[in-house]
Amino acid sequence: MTQAFSTLRINSDRMLDSFSQLASIGATADGGVNRPTFSEAHLTARQWFKEEIEKSGLEFHTDGAGNHSAILKSSAGRVAPHGFGGAYRDQTFLLGSHLDSVPNGGRFDGALGVMAALEVLKTVKENGIRLKVNLEAIDFTDEEGTLVGLLGSAALAGHLHQKDLASPRGGRENLVAGMKRAGLSEESMLSAARPKDSLAGYLELHIEQGKRLERAGMNIGIVSAIVGIWSYRLSFIGRADHAGSTTIDDRLDASLGASAFTLAARELVMRDFPNCVVNVGKMDFAPGAFNIVPARVDLALEFRSPDEEEFNRLDIALLELAQKEARRFGLELEIEFLGKHSPSIMHEKVCNAFAASCDDLGLMHVSLSSGAGHDGQSLADLCPVGMIFVPSVDGASHSPREFTKWEDCVNGANVLLQTVLRLAAG
Amino acid sequence: MTQAFSTLRINSDRMLDSFSQLASIGATADGGVNRPTFSEAHLTARQWFKEEIEKSGLEFHTDGAGNHSAILKSSAGRVAPHGFGGAYRDQTFLLGSHLDSVPNGGRFDGALGVMAALEVLKTVKENGIRLKVNLEAIDFTDEEGTLVGLLGSAALAGHLHQKDLASPRGGRENLVAGMKRAGLSEESMLSAARPKDSLAGYLELHIEQGKRLERAGMNIGIVSAIVGIWSYRLSFIGRADHAGSTTIDDRLDASLGASAFTLAARELVMRDFPNCVVNVGKMDFAPGAFNIVPARVDLALEFRSPDEEEFNRLDIALLELAQKEARRFGLELEIEFLGKHSPSIMHEKVCNAFAASCDDLGLMHVSLSSGAGHDGQSLADLCPVGMIFVPSVDGASHSPREFTKWEDCVNGANVLLQTVLRLAAG
Repeated sequence: MTQAFSTLRINSDRMLDSFSQLASIGATADGGVNRPTFSEAHLTARQWFKEEIEKSGLEFHTDGAGNHSAILKSSAGRVAPHGFGGAYRDQTFLLGSHLDSVPNGGRFDGALGVMAALEVLKTVKENGIRLKVNLEAIDFTDEEGTLVGLLGSAALAGHLHQKDLASPRGGRENLVAGMKRAGLSEESMLSAARPKDSLAGYLELHIEQGKRLERAGMNIGIVSAIVGIWSYRLSFIGRADHAGSTTIDDRLDASLGASAFTLAARELVMRDFPNCVVNVGKMDFAPGAFNIVPARVDLALEFRSPDEEEFNRLDIALLELAQKEARRFGLELEIEFLGKHSPSIMHEKVCNAFAASCDDLGLMHVSLSSGAGHDGQSLADLCPVGMIFVPSVDGASHSPREFTKWEDCVNGANVLLQTVLRLAAG
Repeated sequence: MTQAFSTLRINSDRMLDSFSQLASIGATADGGVNRPTFSEAHLTARQWFKEEIEKSGLEFHTDGAGNHSAILKSSAGRVAPHGFGGAYRDQTFLLGSHLDSVPNGGRFDGALGVMAALEVLKTVKENGIRLKVNLEAIDFTDEEGTLVGLLGSAALAGHLHQKDLASPRGGRENLVAGMKRAGLSEESMLSAARPKDSLAGYLELHIEQGKRLERAGMNIGIVSAIVGIWSYRLSFIGRADHAGSTTIDDRLDASLGASAFTLAARELVMRDFPNCVVNVGKMDFAPGAFNIVPARVDLALEFRSPDEEEFNRLDIALLELAQKEARRFGLELEIEFLGKHSPSIMHEKVCNAFAASCDDLGLMHVSLSSGAGHDGQSLADLCPVGMIFVPSVDGASHSPREFTKWEDCVNGANVLLQTVLRLAAG
């Protein structure tokens, strides 16, 4: 890369200003944000992003899945010297992340990636750099799964099908109401796929959401693979009885199966699946009164692995465990499979370009897998995909405690910029 | 008792007709009823009861706690030969139970007692029997605790205080909204107490809600004592973290403390407190998402004992257990005491009168304690209180499976009638 390009940096103050404005939308008293998909705060953030794009002179684009983008057309200007293989002028290089949050989440998850992508486009534009491909900074709809999970990226990649919308993990009613609030429909969602050869690549900057970079004293994590996620609703079913007049022996108490499974699933994963994680994020008790023995507990189960074969083994082991704990307390077990995302391997060429950019910028980097799911999974079979992480203080995420030093955010955005120039420039 | 009185029986067909009408209000598809306090269905049932009273020519009465009653004034007619000690004409003998149900409960719990009480008044009235005291068939407000628990009887007995309404177990918001729907207020609730010397006694017929009578082949259970109930909200508090990127070791997962406590509390009670029962009726997870480690689980805890001293030991043991399980998983524990009802001893004279009535009617009876709480507890320090149980098929209660053979319901109502005549007549 010529000196002119390799010394290019994003505008830290400008990015901070945008980031701070965004963080104020849906801000919670404890310093986090609450922007579940298509909530009032999320819709406000989407509208703010649209206006921010228009103010910056970039082209605004939206699609049937509600993805919002800033586009910088491949056009006049200085020509960057290095290209990305067979990319041609009508292809688009995507940079992005998401503006939705988990309930009472943090300010950085998703938001940093979208703000950095937009800042990269602004920097490329104001420096008049001519790229061989269009650049697009995209906010993917519903990454977090308030409704479906990776919804916007799956729709764009052509991986979204009617069945995904028929029984979504957030409930059909919430999906229908949410689409309506956002002016979208099932039909528009299912028609948002882009032609495969229109995509030149996808890069994402994200916070690590773990402690590995901080512990290792590294600046940048280059993601080698994104773990897959499987989710289930397990229902332990007993019998409602009077909690005073029914002896403990005579009960079929659904809480016992759900509780025993929760404890045993953790033990199982720690002992036999050290590369995996499991979470029981919620239990719903029915009827749910002080004086009634619980007749039914619905348990929200999610587990993750970087390896497909390991997934199959873990799946069998967890469901056998649930059956065993249900039987132990005389309960029935209902198993509802809610969906899966397979593990995704990041593109080697992109990983190498990230590493070269880090080296040029004097940043310490390390290769690691992502325990969190990300939109790149949806795109990995369509185009070269890569991700970088910046350190999360104390590893906190999906929490108001989520924090990344601004210096690290700027480092990440500069690696993103330099890697785009390496891969996408003329 | 003279032959004329001892051969008196309630009208089984008339009681069945009323019982069936009532069971249709708030009826659920599975044969139960759903009439939580001041729900639409409960308000409809209350209105139906008022009209049923007025149709029967009895006097309708209500008070500031929303208790609804039929009153048969002590007046002209034949004089029943046996009296109840010092009772005088201005005193009132209460018979009753409650029309509210737990969520998705059964048709018999409470409803049978109110219908039997009303039928006793109709029978006494149509036979022109003159009693020394007024007879009153009462529907007590919120026995089940949707809002407060034993609300109407506590108010009538003068045991309801502002603090009971400030932080009720069903939530302050629900209480305020419920009182408004029923046309009641905090002020009216707190001014519903009756003068102590106005009450001559309280009798209640109820289903057993357990299997003891059925197993022993008995017709009638004469209650010796009603267990006390203590309730708490226990909050296990950890930390919200990303469920993919946070290793299991790094988590402070509130679900683990709540699950471990639920299992261990059952073990503790079965092992060390065989006369007691414990129930975890509900857990509320926060934030409550698939992909977030639970930061907080609020657990609804209730436990019961027929003995005050044992209560104190169980209370200490359960709270120590909760602390231990919280510590084991690095969690904080918040303990909110929600209220207690002490065990109540039933009046010996009333128990003897029940037994004599059973003997006269040729019914097999047995003395037992009540594992369920009942409105009689509120009144036991004001006037002689007694309760009888009729068998519950398979012991089911607080469930649509709740069932008692109509023959047993009629037996219970006749024991109630004969005992009233024994205690309250002439």
